Amino acid sequence: MERLGTVAVVGVGLIGGSIGMALRAGGLAREVVGVGRDMTRLDEARDLGAIDRGTVDLASGVSDAEVVVICTPVGRVAEDVRRAAELAPRSALVTDAGSTKRSIVEAVEKTPRAARMFVAAHPMAGSERSGAAHARADLYRDRVCILTPSATTPRAMVDRARAFWSALGCRIVEMGPAEHDEVVAFTSHLPHALAASLASAVPADWLPLAAGAFRDGTRVAGADTELWTAIFRENRGPLMNAVGKLQDRLSALKYALMTDDEESIRRWWDDARARRALFEARQPPGPNA
Amino acid sequence: MERLGTVAVVGVGLIGGSIGMALRAGGLAREVVGVGRDMTRLDEARDLGAIDRGTVDLASGVSDAEVVVICTPVGRVAEDVRRAAELAPRSALVTDAGSTKRSIVEAVEKTPRAARMFVAAHPMAGSERSGAAHARADLYRDRVCILTPSATTPRAMVDRARAFWSALGCRIVEMGPAEHDEVVAFTSHLPHALAASLASAVPADWLPLAAGAFRDGTRVAGADTELWTAIFRENRGPLMNAVGKLQDRLSALKYALMTDDEESIRRWWDDARARRALFEARQPPGPNA
Repeated sequence: MERLGTVAVVGVGLIGGSIGMALRAGGLAREVVGVGRDMTRLDEARDLGAIDRGTVDLASGVSDAEVVVICTPVGRVAEDVRRAAELAPRSALVTDAGSTKRSIVEAVEKTPRAARMFVAAHPMAGSERSGAAHARADLYRDRVCILTPSATTPRAMVDRARAFWSALGCRIVEMGPAEHDEVVAFTSHLPHALAASLASAVPADWLPLAAGAFRDGTRVAGADTELWTAIFRENRGPLMNAVGKLQDRLSALKYALMTDDEESIRRWWDDARARRALFEARQPPGPNA
Repeated sequence: MERLGTVAVVGVGLIGGSIGMALRAGGLAREVVGVGRDMTRLDEARDLGAIDRGTVDLASGVSDAEVVVICTPVGRVAEDVRRAAELAPRSALVTDAGSTKRSIVEAVEKTPRAARMFVAAHPMAGSERSGAAHARADLYRDRVCILTPSATTPRAMVDRARAFWSALGCRIVEMGPAEHDEVVAFTSHLPHALAASLASAVPADWLPLAAGAFRDGTRVAGADTELWTAIFRENRGPLMNAVGKLQDRLSALKYALMTDDEESIRRWWDDARARRALFEARQPPGPNA
Protein backbone atom coordinates (compact mmCIF):
# COMPACT_ATOMS: atom_id res chain seq x y z
CA MET A 1 0.00 0.00 0.00
CA GLU A 2 1.28 3.46 -0.87
CA ARG A 3 1.42 5.87 2.01
CA LEU A 4 -2.01 7.28 2.69
CA GLY A 5 -2.83 10.95 3.13
CA THR A 6 -5.22 11.71 5.96
CA VAL A 7 -6.92 8.86 7.78
CA ALA A 8 -9.86 9.82 9.99
CA VAL A 9 -10.64 7.50 12.90
CA VAL A 10 -14.15 8.10 14.22
CA GLY A 11 -14.37 6.82 17.78
CA VAL A 12 -10.98 6.65 19.48
CA GLY A 13 -11.34 3.89 22.07
CA LEU A 14 -9.52 0.57 22.25
CA ILE A 15 -10.26 -0.27 18.61
CA GLY A 16 -9.88 3.15 17.01
CA GLY A 17 -6.89 3.94 19.20
CA SER A 18 -5.14 0.73 18.18
CA ILE A 19 -5.78 1.46 14.50
CA GLY A 20 -4.36 4.94 14.93
CA MET A 21 -1.30 3.62 16.72
CA ALA A 22 -0.68 1.01 14.03
CA LEU A 23 -0.98 3.63 11.28
CA ARG A 24 1.40 5.97 13.07
CA ALA A 25 3.87 3.26 14.13
CA GLY A 26 4.07 2.01 10.55
CA GLY A 27 4.24 5.45 8.97
CA LEU A 28 1.24 4.36 6.89
CA ALA A 29 -0.52 7.74 6.74
CA ARG A 30 0.53 11.36 6.52
CA GLU A 31 -1.86 12.24 9.32
CA VAL A 32 -4.27 10.42 11.65
CA VAL A 33 -7.22 12.56 12.75
CA GLY A 34 -9.30 11.32 15.66
CA VAL A 35 -12.97 12.27 15.76
CA GLY A 36 -14.79 11.99 19.07
CA ARG A 37 -17.32 13.63 21.32
CA ASP A 38 -15.05 14.61 24.20
CA MET A 39 -12.01 16.83 23.59
CA THR A 40 -10.34 15.77 26.83
CA ARG A 41 -10.36 12.14 25.73
CA LEU A 42 -9.10 13.09 22.29
CA ASP A 43 -6.23 14.98 23.90
CA GLU A 44 -5.44 11.88 25.96
CA ALA A 45 -5.51 9.74 22.83
CA ARG A 46 -3.10 12.17 21.16
CA ASP A 47 -0.80 12.07 24.18
CA LEU A 48 -0.88 8.27 24.03
CA GLY A 49 0.26 8.43 20.42
CA ALA A 50 -2.98 7.08 18.98
CA ILE A 51 -3.73 10.11 16.78
CA ASP A 52 -1.94 13.19 15.45
CA ARG A 53 -4.80 15.54 16.27
CA GLY A 54 -8.39 15.33 17.47
CA THR A 55 -11.64 17.10 16.70
CA VAL A 56 -15.21 16.86 17.90
CA ASP A 57 -16.45 18.08 14.50
CA LEU A 58 -17.03 15.18 12.11
CA ALA A 59 -17.14 17.48 9.06
CA SER A 60 -13.71 18.97 9.65
CA GLY A 61 -12.29 15.60 10.73
CA VAL A 62 -13.16 13.84 7.48
CA SER A 63 -13.07 16.80 5.04
CA ASP A 64 -9.86 15.72 3.34
CA ALA A 65 -9.68 12.12 4.44
CA GLU A 66 -8.50 9.44 2.05
CA VAL A 67 -9.78 6.75 4.44
CA VAL A 68 -12.39 7.03 7.19
CA VAL A 69 -12.60 4.24 9.78
CA ILE A 70 -15.77 4.16 11.87
CA CYS A 71 -14.99 2.66 15.30
CA THR A 72 -18.08 3.73 17.23
CA PRO A 73 -20.34 1.25 19.09
CA VAL A 74 -21.98 -1.21 16.74
CA GLY A 75 -25.47 0.26 17.09
CA ARG A 76 -24.19 3.63 15.82
CA VAL A 77 -21.92 2.45 12.99
CA ALA A 78 -24.41 2.59 10.10
CA GLU A 79 -25.49 6.13 10.89
CA ASP A 80 -21.88 7.27 11.35
CA VAL A 81 -20.89 5.68 8.02
CA ARG A 82 -23.68 7.56 6.26
CA ARG A 83 -22.80 10.87 7.88
CA ALA A 84 -19.07 10.45 7.23
CA ALA A 85 -19.70 9.49 3.57
CA GLU A 86 -21.74 12.65 3.14
CA LEU A 87 -18.99 14.86 4.57
CA ALA A 88 -15.85 13.16 3.22
CA PRO A 89 -14.50 13.54 -0.34
CA ARG A 90 -16.45 11.37 -2.81
CA SER A 91 -13.25 9.42 -3.49
CA ALA A 92 -12.71 8.42 0.13
CA LEU A 93 -12.89 4.84 1.35
CA VAL A 94 -15.13 4.41 4.39
CA THR A 95 -14.71 1.25 6.42
CA ASP A 96 -15.65 0.18 9.94
CA ALA A 97 -14.68 -2.20 12.73
CA GLY A 98 -18.11 -3.29 13.94
CA SER A 99 -18.67 -6.78 15.34
CA THR A 100 -21.81 -7.43 13.30
CA LYS A 101 -22.29 -6.75 9.61
CA ARG A 102 -25.71 -7.58 8.12
CA SER A 103 -27.75 -4.78 9.65
CA ILE A 104 -24.94 -2.26 9.08
CA VAL A 105 -24.56 -3.17 5.41
CA GLU A 106 -28.32 -3.14 4.87
CA ALA A 107 -28.69 0.28 6.47
CA VAL A 108 -25.77 1.81 4.55
CA GLU A 109 -27.06 0.44 1.24
CA LYS A 110 -30.10 2.67 1.53
CA THR A 111 -27.85 5.67 0.82
CA PRO A 112 -26.30 5.34 -2.67
CA ARG A 113 -23.34 7.67 -2.00
CA ALA A 114 -22.41 5.84 1.21
CA ALA A 115 -22.93 2.45 -0.42
CA ARG A 116 -20.36 3.28 -3.12
CA MET A 117 -17.76 4.45 -0.58
CA PHE A 118 -18.24 1.80 2.13
CA VAL A 119 -16.56 -1.56 2.63
CA ALA A 120 -17.74 -3.22 5.84
CA ALA A 121 -14.99 -4.79 7.92
CA HIS A 122 -14.61 -6.73 11.14
CA PRO A 123 -11.03 -6.92 12.38
CA MET A 124 -11.21 -9.83 14.82
CA ALA A 125 -9.29 -8.70 17.84
CA GLY A 126 -10.30 -6.95 20.98
CA SER A 127 -9.94 -7.09 24.68
CA GLU A 128 -12.15 -7.18 27.73
CA ARG A 129 -10.70 -3.74 28.37
CA SER A 130 -11.92 -0.60 26.69
CA GLY A 131 -10.59 2.88 26.05
CA ALA A 132 -7.61 4.31 24.20
CA ALA A 133 -5.47 3.76 27.29
CA HIS A 134 -5.49 0.02 26.49
CA ALA A 135 -4.87 0.47 22.76
CA ARG A 136 -1.85 -1.24 21.21
CA ALA A 137 -0.20 -0.80 17.82
CA ASP A 138 0.01 -4.58 17.39
CA LEU A 139 -3.60 -5.40 18.28
CA TYR A 140 -4.35 -6.48 14.71
CA ARG A 141 -1.08 -8.13 13.79
CA ASP A 142 -1.76 -11.63 12.39
CA ARG A 143 -5.45 -11.33 13.19
CA VAL A 144 -8.22 -12.11 10.75
CA CYS A 145 -10.16 -9.18 9.27
CA ILE A 146 -13.42 -10.20 7.64
CA LEU A 147 -14.60 -7.94 4.80
CA THR A 148 -18.25 -8.21 3.87
CA PRO A 149 -18.81 -6.28 0.65
CA SER A 150 -22.30 -6.48 -0.82
CA ALA A 151 -23.08 -7.25 -4.46
CA THR A 152 -23.06 -3.53 -5.24
CA THR A 153 -19.77 -2.58 -3.52
CA PRO A 154 -17.30 -1.35 -6.20
CA ARG A 155 -14.45 -3.84 -6.56
CA ALA A 156 -11.87 -1.07 -6.50
CA MET A 157 -13.10 -0.07 -3.05
CA VAL A 158 -12.85 -3.66 -1.82
CA ASP A 159 -9.26 -3.76 -3.05
CA ARG A 160 -8.45 -0.54 -1.23
CA ALA A 161 -10.03 -1.92 1.95
CA ARG A 162 -7.99 -5.12 1.60
CA ALA A 163 -4.81 -3.08 1.26
CA PHE A 164 -5.72 -0.91 4.24
CA TRP A 165 -6.47 -3.73 6.68
CA SER A 166 -3.54 -5.80 5.37
CA ALA A 167 -1.22 -2.87 6.09
CA LEU A 168 -2.39 -3.02 9.73
CA GLY A 169 -1.22 -6.63 9.86
CA CYS A 170 -4.52 -8.42 9.23
CA ARG A 171 -5.14 -11.56 7.21
CA ILE A 172 -8.13 -10.80 4.98
CA VAL A 173 -11.14 -13.08 4.59
CA GLU A 174 -14.15 -12.11 2.44
CA MET A 175 -17.69 -13.36 2.94
CA GLY A 176 -21.26 -12.08 2.80
CA PRO A 177 -22.61 -9.97 5.68
CA ALA A 178 -25.22 -12.56 6.73
CA GLU A 179 -22.69 -15.40 6.66
CA HIS A 180 -20.33 -13.25 8.73
CA ASP A 181 -22.98 -12.80 11.39
CA GLU A 182 -23.64 -16.56 11.55
CA VAL A 183 -19.93 -17.26 11.92
CA VAL A 184 -19.19 -14.71 14.63
CA ALA A 185 -22.31 -15.73 16.55
CA PHE A 186 -20.46 -19.01 17.14
CA THR A 187 -16.83 -17.93 17.20
CA SER A 188 -17.14 -14.75 19.25
CA HIS A 189 -20.61 -13.89 20.58
CA LEU A 190 -21.38 -17.35 21.95
CA PRO A 191 -18.05 -17.50 23.85
CA HIS A 192 -18.92 -14.14 25.38
CA ALA A 193 -22.44 -15.27 26.29
CA LEU A 194 -21.01 -18.41 27.89
CA ALA A 195 -18.39 -16.53 29.86
CA ALA A 196 -21.11 -14.30 31.28
CA SER A 197 -23.40 -17.26 32.01
CA LEU A 198 -20.61 -19.01 33.87
CA ALA A 199 -19.65 -15.92 35.86
CA SER A 200 -23.16 -15.38 37.15
CA ALA A 201 -23.95 -19.09 37.71
CA VAL A 202 -21.32 -19.47 40.43
CA PRO A 203 -22.56 -18.32 43.86
CA ALA A 204 -20.58 -15.33 45.13
CA ASP A 205 -19.50 -17.11 48.34
CA TRP A 206 -17.78 -19.82 46.32
CA LEU A 207 -15.74 -17.48 44.13
CA PRO A 208 -12.61 -17.70 46.32
CA LEU A 209 -12.58 -21.43 45.55
CA ALA A 210 -12.70 -20.97 41.79
CA ALA A 211 -9.43 -21.57 39.98
CA GLY A 212 -7.95 -21.51 36.49
CA ALA A 213 -10.78 -23.03 34.49
CA PHE A 214 -13.23 -20.49 35.91
CA ARG A 215 -10.80 -17.61 35.49
CA ASP A 216 -10.12 -18.35 31.82
CA GLY A 217 -13.70 -19.28 31.11
CA THR A 218 -15.04 -15.96 32.45
CA ARG A 219 -12.30 -13.54 31.39
CA VAL A 220 -14.33 -11.81 28.67
CA ALA A 221 -17.30 -11.40 31.02
CA GLY A 222 -15.42 -8.35 32.28
CA ALA A 223 -16.07 -6.56 28.99
CA ASP A 224 -18.14 -3.40 28.65
CA THR A 225 -21.88 -3.79 29.19
CA GLU A 226 -23.06 -1.25 26.61
CA LEU A 227 -20.76 -2.69 23.96
CA TRP A 228 -22.03 -6.22 24.42
CA THR A 229 -25.66 -5.29 24.87
CA ALA A 230 -25.45 -3.59 21.49
CA ILE A 231 -23.64 -6.50 19.80
CA PHE A 232 -26.08 -9.08 21.18
CA ARG A 233 -29.05 -7.01 20.01
CA GLU A 234 -27.58 -6.46 16.56
CA ASN A 235 -26.95 -10.16 16.12
CA ARG A 236 -29.77 -11.64 18.11
CA GLY A 237 -31.06 -14.09 15.48
CA PRO A 238 -27.76 -15.88 14.82
CA LEU A 239 -26.83 -15.70 18.50
CA MET A 240 -30.11 -17.35 19.56
CA ASN A 241 -29.29 -20.14 17.13
CA ALA A 242 -25.78 -20.53 18.51
CA VAL A 243 -27.05 -20.55 22.11
CA GLY A 244 -29.51 -23.26 21.09
CA LYS A 245 -26.69 -25.41 19.70
CA LEU A 246 -24.76 -24.98 22.93
CA GLN A 247 -27.80 -25.94 24.97
CA ASP A 248 -28.05 -29.12 22.90
CA ARG A 249 -24.47 -30.02 23.86
CA LEU A 250 -25.23 -29.42 27.54
CA SER A 251 -28.43 -31.45 27.34
CA ALA A 252 -26.51 -34.35 25.80
CA LEU A 253 -24.05 -34.23 28.69
CA LYS A 254 -26.82 -34.04 31.25
CA TYR A 255 -28.53 -37.07 29.78
CA ALA A 256 -25.28 -39.04 29.76
CA LEU A 257 -24.71 -38.08 33.40
CA MET A 258 -28.26 -38.97 34.37
CA THR A 259 -27.89 -42.44 32.88
CA ASP A 260 -24.26 -42.69 34.06
CA ASP A 261 -23.37 -43.67 30.49
CA GLU A 262 -19.58 -43.83 30.66
CA GLU A 263 -19.08 -44.40 26.94
CA SER A 264 -21.28 -41.42 26.01
CA ILE A 265 -19.50 -39.12 28.47
CA ARG A 266 -16.14 -40.25 27.10
CA ARG A 267 -17.24 -39.66 23.49
CA TRP A 268 -18.80 -36.31 24.42
CA TRP A 269 -15.50 -35.14 25.91
CA ASP A 270 -13.40 -36.68 23.14
CA ASP A 271 -15.36 -34.84 20.41
CA ALA A 272 -14.71 -31.55 22.17
CA ARG A 273 -11.07 -32.35 22.76
CA ALA A 274 -10.55 -33.18 19.08
CA ARG A 275 -12.23 -29.93 17.98
CA ARG A 276 -10.09 -27.96 20.38
CA ALA A 277 -6.94 -29.68 19.02
CA LEU A 278 -8.06 -28.78 15.49
CA PHE A 279 -8.41 -25.14 16.54
CA GLU A 280 -4.87 -25.15 17.96
CA ALA A 281 -3.50 -26.78 14.82
CA ARG A 282 -5.10 -24.12 12.61
CA GLN A 283 -3.84 -21.14 14.54
CA PRO A 284 -1.33 -19.13 12.54
CA PRO A 285 1.99 -18.38 14.13
CA GLY A 286 2.29 -14.88 15.53
CA PRO A 287 2.43 -12.91 18.74
CA ASN A 288 -1.34 -12.94 19.21
CA ALA A 289 -1.95 -16.47 18.01
CA MET B 1 6.12 -28.59 59.83
CA GLU B 2 9.10 -30.65 60.97
CA ARG B 3 10.95 -32.38 58.19
CA LEU B 4 9.13 -35.57 57.22
CA GLY B 5 10.71 -38.97 56.82
CA THR B 6 9.56 -40.92 53.78
CA VAL B 7 6.69 -39.59 51.71
CA ALA B 8 5.18 -42.03 49.23
CA VAL B 9 3.47 -40.53 46.18
CA VAL B 10 1.19 -43.07 44.52
CA GLY B 11 0.63 -42.06 40.89
CA VAL B 12 3.40 -39.83 39.56
CA GLY B 13 1.72 -37.74 36.85
CA LEU B 14 1.20 -33.98 36.75
CA ILE B 15 -0.25 -33.88 40.27
CA GLY B 16 1.92 -36.46 42.01
CA GLY B 17 5.00 -35.22 40.18
CA SER B 18 4.36 -31.63 41.25
CA ILE B 19 3.89 -32.73 44.87
CA GLY B 20 7.16 -34.67 44.72
CA MET B 21 8.99 -31.72 43.21
CA ALA B 22 7.64 -29.34 45.87
CA LEU B 23 8.68 -31.73 48.66
CA ARG B 24 12.15 -32.10 47.22
CA ALA B 25 12.62 -28.45 46.33
CA GLY B 26 11.66 -27.42 49.85
CA GLY B 27 13.68 -30.15 51.56
CA LEU B 28 10.42 -31.14 53.26
CA ALA B 29 11.02 -34.89 53.36
CA ARG B 30 14.00 -37.18 53.80
CA GLU B 31 12.92 -39.23 50.81
CA VAL B 32 10.16 -39.11 48.19
CA VAL B 33 9.21 -42.53 46.86
CA GLY B 34 7.12 -42.70 43.70
CA VAL B 35 4.78 -45.66 43.25
CA GLY B 36 3.50 -46.40 39.76
CA ARG B 37 2.73 -49.16 37.31
CA ASP B 38 5.41 -48.48 34.73
CA MET B 39 9.07 -48.49 35.74
CA THR B 40 10.12 -46.51 32.65
CA ARG B 41 7.84 -43.66 33.61
CA LEU B 42 9.01 -43.76 37.20
CA ASP B 43 12.61 -43.51 35.96
CA GLU B 44 11.61 -40.49 33.89
CA ALA B 45 9.94 -38.92 36.92
CA ARG B 46 13.14 -39.49 38.92
CA ASP B 47 15.23 -37.93 36.16
CA LEU B 48 12.87 -34.93 36.17
CA GLY B 49 13.51 -34.50 39.89
CA ALA B 50 9.95 -35.42 40.92
CA ILE B 51 10.93 -38.37 43.14
CA ASP B 52 14.04 -39.81 44.73
CA ARG B 53 13.26 -43.37 43.71
CA GLY B 54 10.43 -45.31 42.13
CA THR B 55 8.83 -48.70 42.61
CA VAL B 56 5.95 -50.60 41.04
CA ASP B 57 5.35 -52.42 44.34
CA LEU B 58 2.92 -50.53 46.56
CA ALA B 59 3.87 -52.55 49.65
CA SER B 60 7.55 -51.68 49.46
CA GLY B 61 6.78 -48.09 48.43
CA VAL B 62 4.68 -47.30 51.51
CA SER B 63 6.27 -49.70 54.03
CA ASP B 64 8.02 -47.00 56.05
CA ALA B 65 6.10 -43.95 54.84
CA GLU B 66 5.19 -41.18 57.24
CA VAL B 67 2.81 -39.71 54.65
CA VAL B 68 1.20 -41.40 51.64
CA VAL B 69 -0.36 -39.20 48.96
CA ILE B 70 -2.71 -40.95 46.54
CA CYS B 71 -2.63 -39.19 43.16
CA THR B 72 -4.23 -41.82 40.97
CA PRO B 73 -7.31 -41.13 38.78
CA VAL B 74 -10.33 -40.21 40.85
CA GLY B 75 -12.17 -43.46 40.19
CA ARG B 76 -9.28 -45.43 41.71
CA VAL B 77 -8.49 -43.23 44.72
CA ALA B 78 -10.70 -44.92 47.34
CA GLU B 79 -9.36 -48.39 46.57
CA ASP B 80 -5.75 -47.12 46.53
CA VAL B 81 -6.27 -45.37 49.88
CA ARG B 82 -7.55 -48.58 51.40
CA ARG B 83 -4.69 -50.68 50.01
CA ALA B 84 -2.05 -48.13 51.03
CA ALA B 85 -3.50 -47.85 54.56
CA GLU B 86 -3.29 -51.61 54.89
CA LEU B 87 0.36 -51.70 53.83
CA ALA B 88 1.71 -48.50 55.43
CA PRO B 89 2.63 -48.12 59.11
CA ARG B 90 -0.47 -47.63 61.29
CA SER B 91 0.83 -44.18 62.26
CA ALA B 92 1.03 -42.94 58.67
CA LEU B 93 -1.12 -40.14 57.30
CA VAL B 94 -2.84 -41.03 54.04
CA THR B 95 -4.17 -38.17 51.95
CA ASP B 96 -5.18 -37.77 48.31
CA ALA B 97 -5.55 -35.17 45.57
CA GLY B 98 -8.79 -36.32 43.97
CA SER B 99 -11.17 -33.81 42.39
CA THR B 100 -14.28 -35.23 44.07
CA LYS B 101 -14.63 -36.18 47.71
CA ARG B 102 -18.00 -37.62 48.79
CA SER B 103 -17.79 -41.04 47.16
CA ILE B 104 -14.11 -41.40 48.12
CA VAL B 105 -14.74 -40.56 51.77
CA GLU B 106 -17.77 -42.85 51.92
CA ALA B 107 -15.86 -45.74 50.40
CA VAL B 108 -12.82 -45.31 52.66
CA GLU B 109 -15.01 -45.08 55.78
CA LYS B 110 -16.06 -48.68 55.25
CA THR B 111 -12.56 -49.77 56.31
CA PRO B 112 -11.90 -48.67 59.91
CA ARG B 113 -8.08 -48.76 59.63
CA ALA B 114 -8.10 -46.62 56.47
CA ALA B 115 -10.72 -44.27 57.93
CA ARG B 116 -8.45 -43.50 60.91
CA MET B 117 -5.43 -42.81 58.70
CA PHE B 118 -7.10 -40.86 55.86
CA VAL B 119 -7.72 -37.14 55.43
CA ALA B 120 -9.32 -36.43 52.05
CA ALA B 121 -7.85 -33.44 50.22
CA HIS B 122 -8.36 -31.55 46.99
CA PRO B 123 -5.49 -29.22 46.12
CA MET B 124 -7.12 -26.90 43.57
CA ALA B 125 -4.61 -26.58 40.81
CA GLY B 126 -4.02 -28.48 37.67
CA SER B 127 -3.44 -28.03 34.02
CA GLU B 128 -4.94 -29.16 30.76
CA ARG B 129 -1.65 -31.03 30.37
CA SER B 130 -0.92 -34.33 32.05
CA GLY B 131 2.15 -36.35 32.94
CA ALA B 132 5.16 -35.77 35.15
CA ALA B 133 6.87 -33.96 32.27
CA HIS B 134 4.53 -31.00 32.94
CA ALA B 135 4.91 -31.12 36.73
CA ARG B 136 6.12 -27.98 38.52
CA ALA B 137 7.35 -27.47 42.07
CA ASP B 138 5.20 -24.33 42.39
CA LEU B 139 1.93 -25.80 41.10
CA TYR B 140 0.32 -25.49 44.53
CA ARG B 141 1.83 -22.25 45.71
CA ASP B 142 -0.94 -19.90 46.90
CA ARG B 143 -3.61 -22.31 45.75
CA VAL B 144 -6.54 -23.44 47.84
CA CYS B 145 -6.48 -26.98 49.21
CA ILE B 146 -9.86 -28.18 50.48
CA LEU B 147 -9.73 -30.79 53.23
CA THR B 148 -12.90 -32.80 53.77
CA PRO B 149 -12.52 -34.79 56.99
CA SER B 150 -15.56 -36.76 58.07
CA ALA B 151 -17.03 -36.73 61.59
CA THR B 152 -14.86 -39.72 62.49
CA THR B 153 -11.52 -38.45 61.17
CA PRO B 154 -9.09 -38.05 64.13
CA ARG B 155 -8.36 -34.38 64.71
CA ALA B 156 -4.63 -35.06 65.00
CA MET B 157 -4.67 -36.48 61.50
CA VAL B 158 -6.49 -33.42 60.17
CA ASP B 159 -3.82 -31.22 61.75
CA ARG B 160 -1.06 -33.26 60.14
CA ALA B 161 -2.81 -32.99 56.77
CA ARG B 162 -3.13 -29.22 57.23
CA ALA B 163 0.58 -28.97 57.97
CA PHE B 164 1.48 -31.17 54.99
CA TRP B 165 -0.55 -29.25 52.38
CA SER B 166 0.40 -25.89 53.91
CA ALA B 167 4.06 -26.83 53.55
CA LEU B 168 3.43 -27.27 49.80
CA GLY B 169 2.22 -23.68 49.67
CA CYS B 170 -1.55 -24.23 49.88
CA ARG B 171 -4.12 -22.15 51.71
CA ILE B 172 -6.30 -24.63 53.63
CA VAL B 173 -10.09 -24.63 53.63
CA GLU B 174 -12.11 -27.27 55.48
CA MET B 175 -15.62 -28.37 54.59
CA GLY B 176 -17.71 -31.53 54.40
CA PRO B 177 -17.23 -33.93 51.47
CA ALA B 178 -20.73 -33.39 50.06
CA GLU B 179 -20.42 -29.61 50.29
CA HIS B 180 -17.05 -29.83 48.56
CA ASP B 181 -18.61 -31.70 45.66
CA GLU B 182 -21.36 -29.08 45.31
CA VAL B 183 -18.81 -26.28 45.28
CA VAL B 184 -16.41 -27.80 42.75
CA ALA B 185 -19.30 -28.79 40.50
CA PHE B 186 -19.75 -25.04 39.99
CA THR B 187 -16.21 -23.70 40.33
CA SER B 188 -14.34 -26.38 38.37
CA HIS B 189 -16.44 -29.10 36.73
CA LEU B 190 -18.99 -26.74 35.17
CA PRO B 191 -16.24 -24.56 33.61
CA HIS B 192 -14.76 -27.72 32.11
CA ALA B 193 -18.14 -28.89 30.82
CA LEU B 194 -18.74 -25.47 29.25
CA ALA B 195 -15.32 -25.34 27.62
CA ALA B 196 -16.00 -28.71 26.02
CA SER B 197 -19.53 -27.69 24.96
CA LEU B 198 -18.16 -24.55 23.33
CA ALA B 199 -15.35 -26.38 21.56
CA SER B 200 -17.69 -28.86 19.94
CA ALA B 201 -20.47 -26.35 19.18
CA VAL B 202 -18.35 -24.37 16.72
CA PRO B 203 -18.29 -25.92 13.22
CA ALA B 204 -14.80 -27.10 12.27
CA ASP B 205 -14.68 -24.91 9.13
CA TRP B 206 -15.14 -21.78 11.22
CA LEU B 207 -12.34 -22.49 13.68
CA PRO B 208 -9.77 -20.37 11.80
CA LEU B 209 -12.07 -17.40 12.46
CA ALA B 210 -12.25 -17.96 16.20
CA ALA B 211 -10.19 -15.60 18.33
CA GLY B 212 -9.33 -14.87 21.95
CA ALA B 213 -12.70 -15.43 23.59
CA PHE B 214 -12.98 -18.88 22.01
CA ARG B 215 -9.37 -19.74 22.77
CA ASP B 216 -9.64 -18.88 26.46
CA GLY B 217 -13.12 -20.31 26.78
CA THR B 218 -12.06 -23.71 25.42
CA ARG B 219 -8.54 -24.05 26.84
CA VAL B 220 -9.40 -26.72 29.39
CA ALA B 221 -11.27 -28.76 26.76
CA GLY B 222 -7.81 -30.02 25.80
CA ALA B 223 -7.59 -31.95 29.07
CA ASP B 224 -7.38 -35.71 29.31
CA THR B 225 -10.53 -37.64 28.37
CA GLU B 226 -10.21 -40.46 30.90
CA LEU B 227 -9.51 -38.03 33.73
CA TRP B 228 -12.58 -35.94 33.03
CA THR B 229 -14.88 -38.83 32.24
CA ALA B 230 -14.02 -40.20 35.68
CA ILE B 231 -14.50 -36.84 37.45
CA PHE B 232 -17.85 -36.19 35.74
CA ARG B 233 -19.09 -39.65 36.67
CA GLU B 234 -17.93 -39.34 40.27
CA ASN B 235 -19.72 -36.02 40.65
CA ARG B 236 -22.63 -36.46 38.32
CA GLY B 237 -25.38 -35.37 40.71
CA PRO B 238 -23.91 -31.98 41.65
CA LEU B 239 -22.69 -31.44 38.08
CA MET B 240 -26.17 -32.04 36.65
CA ASN B 241 -27.45 -29.41 39.06
CA ALA B 242 -24.75 -26.93 38.02
CA VAL B 243 -25.40 -27.56 34.31
CA GLY B 244 -29.07 -26.92 34.98
CA LYS B 245 -28.28 -23.55 36.58
CA LEU B 246 -26.16 -22.63 33.59
CA GLN B 247 -28.94 -23.61 31.22
CA ASP B 248 -31.26 -21.29 33.14
CA ARG B 249 -28.86 -18.40 32.52
CA LEU B 250 -28.72 -19.19 28.81
CA SER B 251 -32.49 -19.49 28.61
CA ALA B 252 -32.87 -16.08 30.22
CA LEU B 253 -30.54 -14.60 27.61
CA LYS B 254 -32.37 -16.33 24.79
CA TYR B 255 -35.69 -14.98 25.98
CA ALA B 256 -34.30 -11.45 26.27
CA LEU B 257 -32.90 -11.75 22.73
CA MET B 258 -36.15 -13.14 21.37
CA THR B 259 -38.10 -10.19 22.77
CA ASP B 260 -35.22 -7.76 21.97
CA ASP B 261 -35.48 -6.58 25.55
CA GLU B 262 -32.55 -4.16 25.79
CA GLU B 263 -32.86 -3.55 29.51
CA SER B 264 -32.92 -7.28 30.31
CA ILE B 265 -29.88 -7.97 28.12
CA ARG B 266 -28.04 -5.11 29.80
CA ARG B 267 -28.92 -6.36 33.29
CA TRP B 268 -28.05 -9.94 32.31
CA TRP B 269 -24.57 -8.84 31.22
CA ASP B 270 -24.10 -6.46 34.13
CA ASP B 271 -24.85 -9.18 36.70
CA ALA B 272 -22.18 -11.38 35.14
CA ARG B 273 -19.71 -8.54 34.89
CA ALA B 274 -20.17 -7.69 38.58
CA ARG B 275 -19.67 -11.32 39.61
CA ARG B 276 -16.55 -11.54 37.51
CA ALA B 277 -15.21 -8.35 39.12
CA LEU B 278 -15.91 -9.84 42.56
CA PHE B 279 -13.90 -12.92 41.60
CA GLU B 280 -10.95 -10.75 40.55
CA ALA B 281 -11.16 -8.74 43.75
CA ARG B 282 -11.07 -11.88 45.88
CA GLN B 283 -8.08 -13.46 44.21
CA PRO B 284 -5.09 -13.64 46.54
CA PRO B 285 -1.83 -12.19 45.29
CA GLY B 286 0.66 -14.76 44.09
CA PRO B 287 2.29 -16.16 40.98
CA ASN B 288 -0.67 -18.40 40.14
CA ALA B 289 -3.39 -15.98 41.13
